[in-house]
Parts: sequence; C-alpha cells; structure tokens
Amino acid sequence: MPGIHSAIVAVGNELLCGKTTDTNGSWLSERLAFLGAPVLRRWVVGDHSSEIQDVVSVAMDIAELVVITGGLGPTQDDLTRQAVADCLGLKLISDPELLQDLRDRFRVRGFAKLPRSNPVQAEVPEGAEVIPNLRGSAPGLWIDVGNQVVVLLPGVPQEMRGMFDEALEPRVREYFGSRLAPLAQRTFHTTGILESVLDERVGTVRDKLPEGVEVAFLPDLQGVSLRISTSLTTERDRTRLDDAEAVLEPIIDPYRFEAVSGDLVESIARELMDAGLSIAVAESCTGGLMAKRITDLPGSSAYFRGGVVAYADPIKIDVLGLDERIFIDNGAVSKRVAVGMAQGVAELMGADVGVGITGVAGPEGGTSTKPVGLVWYAASVRGRSVFEKKVFFGDREAVRERAGQAAFRLVFRMLTDSV
Amino acid sequence: MPGIHSAIVAVGNELLCGKTTDTNGSWLSERLAFLGAPVLRRWVVGDHSSEIQDVVSVAMDIAELVVITGGLGPTQDDLTRQAVADCLGLKLISDPELLQDLRDRFRVRGFAKLPRSNPVQAEVPEGAEVIPNLRGSAPGLWIDVGNQVVVLLPGVPQEMRGMFDEALEPRVREYFGSRLAPLAQRTFHTTGILESVLDERVGTVRDKLPEGVEVAFLPDLQGVSLRISTSLTTERDRTRLDDAEAVLEPIIDPYRFEAVSGDLVESIARELMDAGLSIAVAESCTGGLMAKRITDLPGSSAYFRGGVVAYADPIKIDVLGLDERIFIDNGAVSKRVAVGMAQGVAELMGADVGVGITGVAGPEGGTSTKPVGLVWYAASVRGRSVFEKKVFFGDREAVRERAGQAAFRLVFRMLTDSV
Repeated sequence: MPGIHSAIVAVGNELLCGKTTDTNGSWLSERLAFLGAPVLRRWVVGDHSSEIQDVVSVAMDIAELVVITGGLGPTQDDLTRQAVADCLGLKLISDPELLQDLRDRFRVRGFAKLPRSNPVQAEVPEGAEVIPNLRGSAPGLWIDVGNQVVVLLPGVPQEMRGMFDEALEPRVREYFGSRLAPLAQRTFHTTGILESVLDERVGTVRDKLPEGVEVAFLPDLQGVSLRISTSLTTERDRTRLDDAEAVLEPIIDPYRFEAVSGDLVESIARELMDAGLSIAVAESCTGGLMAKRITDLPGSSAYFRGGVVAYADPIKIDVLGLDERIFIDNGAVSKRVAVGMAQGVAELMGADVGVGITGVAGPEGGTSTKPVGLVWYAASVRGRSVFEKKVFFGDREAVRERAGQAAFRLVFRMLTDSV
Repeated sequence: MPGIHSAIVAVGNELLCGKTTDTNGSWLSERLAFLGAPVLRRWVVGDHSSEIQDVVSVAMDIAELVVITGGLGPTQDDLTRQAVADCLGLKLISDPELLQDLRDRFRVRGFAKLPRSNPVQAEVPEGAEVIPNLRGSAPGLWIDVGNQVVVLLPGVPQEMRGMFDEALEPRVREYFGSRLAPLAQRTFHTTGILESVLDERVGTVRDKLPEGVEVAFLPDLQGVSLRISTSLTTERDRTRLDDAEAVLEPIIDPYRFEAVSGDLVESIARELMDAGLSIAVAESCTGGLMAKRITDLPGSSAYFRGGVVAYADPIKIDVLGLDERIFIDNGAVSKRVAVGMAQGVAELMGADVGVGITGVAGPEGGTSTKPVGLVWYAASVRGRSVFEKKVFFGDREAVRERAGQAAFRLVFRMLTDSV
C-alpha cells in the first residue's frame, strides 16, 4: 500500500475492565488520519508485560508509526516503558535531565525528596528522545528504530492531547515528510431516508464517482450522514470532492440539511431567525423531547415561545382547545388531533409556527389499526397546516427519537418551501 | 490461568478513522467481567476482510469467548459476516426465517419489496444460531466452534446492549457454566452529593470495610452511584457485601434512592402510583427535559398529566396564570416564579403534584446577582409548596441536567416526607 500506516496500543487495566472508555483511541485515530498516517488497527491491553510485548511486536509488523498510550506512571502496575524496551531489545537508562526535572517539579510542590517510586519515570530506553509533558509528570518517548517509529504517550487524555499537538504532530510531519498522505473530507447530513435506501441509490451512481473518493454512511436515530473523503496529494485532489458532491447531489438533496452540529434543529433555528418567525410545540407521545431539543440550543429564546406536553387527553381539550368530538370520532392518535394540537399551541402561545405530534410510543398501547410506532405529526404556519403519518420501528426511545426528528423534518420542509 | 477469558473485536471504519468512539468495548468489558469471563484483549479494525480475519484468528487463540461487534449492516462495506465465516471455514447460507422476518418488518413500514441490499442480512454461517435483534434489522449470531464460542453483534450500541442483556448473557452462563468466575456487586444510587464529598466520607470508614470488597464511584450528571464488588467463589463471599453495605449505610442514606434503572424518576413514579397521585411540570430553563424524563418511562400516562414549557415570560403569565407584578418585583428567575409555576401547572392540568423550575442555563444571560447556573425550583403537593435554589456548575447541558435532577430530588423528598 502507498503511504504509511499507524497502529495504536492503549494500555491499562481500567480500560480492559470497562471502568474507563478509551477515548484516546478515537481522538488519535482522527488526528493521524488527517495527518496522513491513517490507523490500520488498534488494541486495548491490560498492564501485563507479555500482553504489551505481544501486541507491540504485531503493531510494528503492520505499521510504520506505533503509538502506545498509558502505563507510564510511577506505580508498580505501570509497565509500558519496560515492556516496550524489552520488546525492542533496548536497555532502560536513567536520563539525568529528566530526573532533575522531576526533582524540580516535586520541590515546587513542597517535596524535599522525590517519592521513592517516581525516579522510574526518568528511565528511558537507550536512544529514545523525550517528549516533554507540560501537564503532568510522565514524559513521552520517541523511539526511532530505523524507518519506523514507536511513540509512548501518557494515558491521561488531556496530557496526551497536548503532547500530540505540540510535539508529536510536527515531529511526524518532519520524519515521514512526503510519505504522508493527508486527507480531505466533506460530510452531508440527511434525514428522512433509511440507510439501506440511501446506500442503494448511491450504488446507482457509484461508478460515476471520481476514483479515490471513499463514501461512508454514518447512521444514528436522527438520520444518516454521508461522508466523502479522499487523499490530498496534489491540488487536483481537492476538486475530486467537488466532483463527488456533484454526483451525489441529486440523490441527497431532498433529505439534506446543513448544520455545523449535525442537528436538524440548528437548521430550523436558522430558518426561523432569517424569517423572523417564532415556534411553539404541542407534544403527546414525544413527551417534551421536541421542546428539549429546541432548547438544547443556546439562544433559543429568540424564537421559541414554549410548549405544551399534552400527555393526558383532557389536556389536549382543556389547554389546547381541541374539540372533544374529534377524539370520539378519530381517537387521540389521528390526523385531526395532530393538526388541532399544532394550531392550538400556536394560538395559545402566540407563535407563528405550531407543531403537533401524537402517536403510540409503546411498548404497550398498540392495536391492530394503530400499532406501536404509529405517529401523526403536523406543522402549522400562520394557519396553513401540513401533516404526515409514519410507523416508526424500534423500542420506545427509538420511536420517540425518530418521530420527533420526522416532525422536525416536516417543519424544515415547510420553512424551506418544499412541502 | 483458571477460568475463561473473552476477547472483543470492534469492526468499523468509522471507529478507525476516529469519527466514532468505541463505547461498546468498555460496556462489554464491564459486563463480561461481572459475568466471570474477563476480557484479555480488545481490537478495533476497519471494514476490511483480511484485517477482520487476522484479528479474529488471534482472538480465538487467546480467548474462549470472542465477541465481534459491527459491520453487520446491509451495505457493501459491512463485511463482518463473510470475513468471520471465511476465518472459520464456514459457508454463508440464507436463513429463510430471517429473510421472512426482514420482509415482514419492511412490509409493515410500507415497502412492497425489500431494498436490494437488505437480504444479505439474512445470510448466516452454517451452523450459527441467530440472536434476535428487537431494535434493528441486523441479527446477531452465536457460533459454537467446540469448547469455544464466536459471537457477532451489531455495532449500534443500543441494539448491542439489548441483545447482550436479553439473549447473550443467559447463553454464556449456560454454555460456560462453572468455568465462569463471576463477581458479585451491589450498586447504591445517590443524588444530591458531590463525588468528592462522598469519596471523603467513604474514606473515613474504609478500614471498617471487609477485605476483598472493592468500592467504585460512578458519577454522572444526575448523581453518583457507589458500587461495591467482590469475587464470588464461596457462599460466604456474599455476606461480605452485606457487611460492606452496613458500614456504608449511614453515609449514603440521606442521598440514596432505589431504582432498577438507576433513574430517580423511577422512584418518583413508584411513590406517585403508591399514593395514587398525579403530576404535572412547568419548565423554563430545562425546556422540556423534565417532561421528557418522566415520559421516558413506559406507562407514565398512569400518573403524568402533562407539562408546560413556559420559555417566554408571557407564557408563564398567560398560560400558567402568574401575576405580571411578580416578574417586575422579583424577575423571572426567582422563588415566587418557581412556586407560582408549580402551583399554576398543577391547577391548569388538574394534577395533585406540580413542579416549577426557572433559571439561567447559559452560556449567555448571567448577571452578577443571577449568574449562569442559578436555578430556583419548587414542588407543590395539594397546595403545600417547598422550594430550593442552587447554583449549578458546568456547561448548558450540565446545568440543565443537574437542575432537573435537583428538582426531581425535591419532589422525591416531598413524596417520602423527608422535606
């Protein structure tokens, strides 16, 4: 394969027993990918010398840059330095500058002498270069083993990240130079289309995509993001992403929204502010979820009037002003109730846009004609109402999340004149 | 080594490029440790057949239980099923029941035909047993290779977790039986006390705890859970947890609540149902978060009437009936507004219990007398009101979560006669 690859080894019993989630792995993976040394494989191992050695030796077989995090502290279970030295056949020697530096740090904190366990932190494999740690006591190490580099960093995320940005990234650039293949990427957020359907449609134009452009689907309960990426070796490579976007545009356009956060509510907020409109929501099955999502955004008071969680039917009648007969004729989960809730809350709260949503979130309460997952939702803008119904699958949480998102999508389409 | 070990392989380009953090690894590690099959090593690899095969074959060399997550979806980059089958020398065959099940799911949602890519999800290695996925379309697989098991689970955390709890855990227990070395644990949920304060108080009794009992603090935005654990080799080991609980009891009692889900709202729901009371909430700064949390629980319609998100001040006056002069005299973030909201919403919705909450969630809107994080909240039960104020720290999300939880704690204390 052209270019170089990285491998990452995270060391620590706290990771293996599940007490701590390995966030260093994904953070480093992203940085290394964009730097042009994508990660091929990651490991998590415990504080056991043989485990560390087994894994580091495989990592060195498959990658030019091996980054090892954790296990550099002063305690007895911190074995990474020794294990890596053993694996590379190097002796550990005490670095006089590091030792002095450790002494100075502890003196500042009121220790006349170093705690007995700390001097091991000044021991480095012969030939290793020290990467200073400005935020803690465990220094990092850069070990050049000839055409290949092994790097040791502390496991504390804040220390590791600082050392990567300040010292490691420039060193990697300098060491590997033109062997690096930095990446460019672009992400398109969509909602309202299933991953499998989107994949099928992208499949129909896959042969029109420029070579070297990779497409990834990133689904969650609120939609699917499509990410295109390509390596950035010449200036011409940049135009490949433009070309790929032009190919994908007709497919994603009906479902696409733009938001830095990836949240459709951000796009709705922008549309509301641009048009000078206010919004209010009336929720039954989502039970406050839509109001919460709107108010998750700082500054939402500029356009959000408020909401009514009309969970019990009498609230829909007494507070939102729906006619009791609608319930007798149609039931609470119906088009007329959704529309009535949207119009009622807009009127009650003096909002330009009203949203209504009513459905069966489950797990109980479904019938043959109104199954769990059935949701009616409506949006009303200054008297004009649109509505939809869908059957959402998944458990209670999934139904609620997906239904809320579908209702937001209806509002978005109404605000952008596509419905 | 005595007992059996697990190994975990997480598959997905989105993990390797760092876009997604591998939370499945730590979650599974914790569950497997308690089940008695501790994890020895974890891997993260991309959607590449050779990578998956390389790693799975090493995993099978070191562990009796190999759990592989991710890459089971319907798209072209989902290669796990095929790669694992190749690695084990098994053919993939289409499972007629699974195929029918997929068709049924899609038909319910209005698809006359399956999207072209979905049928691959019904392909299973010969001899594999299907683990049903009640939350999504990718089934799991259990492959018994003789004295050793390989398990495939989807990468979506919610689906993976559900399948582990419902289907995998009992199967692992049955398959490995006495070869498992389980841990016994007990978790105490607390809210209203800082982790550092709780840690300090536990420190004062640490030497009274029985040997072999480990204490872990599990903090989140809603409180701190205290977990005690011990290995379970003899029946006597169980009494160690009783002894430890007796030591910790006086410290945690004022902050403790009991809930299977770890959610204080579950305890409140139980109290409301036992007393035959209904509840309604009026929210300003939390913007629907409290109503959402109440309705996250299935069956909440038995006691939840509804809520008003009174985000704009006129809504507090027009809908909840507060006197305009309160705002002039006290401002919107004040005791009288919180109490007025609690009483107003109880009256509006015909509920026995009303809750009101108003504050400065930030990041903007703070003043020297009403800083970001200041929140007033009140609970009113049949006319009797209690109230509190606190300044919560953290970002907007943290302030909202912590404030909502504090208001729930006030309701809980009122319902249990401790305030």
